[in-house]
Amino acid sequence: MPGKDDTSVYIGRRPTNNYVLAAMVMLNEGKECVIKARGRAISHAVDVAEVLKNRFMHNVEVKGIVIGTERLAGPDGKESNVSSIEITLCKRK
Amino acid sequence: MPGKDDTSVYIGRRPTNNYVLAAMVMLNEGKECVIKARGRAISHAVDVAEVLKNRFMHNVEVKGIVIGTERLAGPDGKESNVSSIEITLCKRK
Repeated sequence: MPGKDDTSVYIGRRPTNNYVLAAMVMLNEGKECVIKARGRAISHAVDVAEVLKNRFMHNVEVKGIVIGTERLAGPDGKESNVSSIEITLCKRK
Repeated sequence: MPGKDDTSVYIGRRPTNNYVLAAMVMLNEGKECVIKARGRAISHAVDVAEVLKNRFMHNVEVKGIVIGTERLAGPDGKESNVSSIEITLCKRK
């Protein structure tokens, strides 16, 4: 399964449906699921949440969205600011 | 000023600071400001909100974030689904 810890799905460069599937597994176990992304993957994270909600699990809703900034070291060792997003999904009661 | 109506800033391909400036003008007039983007520009919208909040206006906060899906006609006339985001910013009281 693409990068995840217990309740998080980290969005990278794999196909959207890989992440959608990972999130569905968590939600079907009764857990909340937090979709996390940085930089350009932020758009992809929104796609994952929307595809999941509209195409696969109509009983899922967005519980909250948080944006932030992280300082990351680039390949040259220089630090730079990168935007981040966390989209929390849960099943409607 | 890059694409905007009365309280919205539409994010496109211009430099981040163009949009930051447009948002600052609205916020300084006492209005709320809604940063809107579709597709790949979503990551850019988060950058604009974060740069504004962290570098230029420390008294601004994110009031709400909404994600959605819009159906758009492509250049070939075919419709496809595109994710969207709206980030509402306001000055802290």
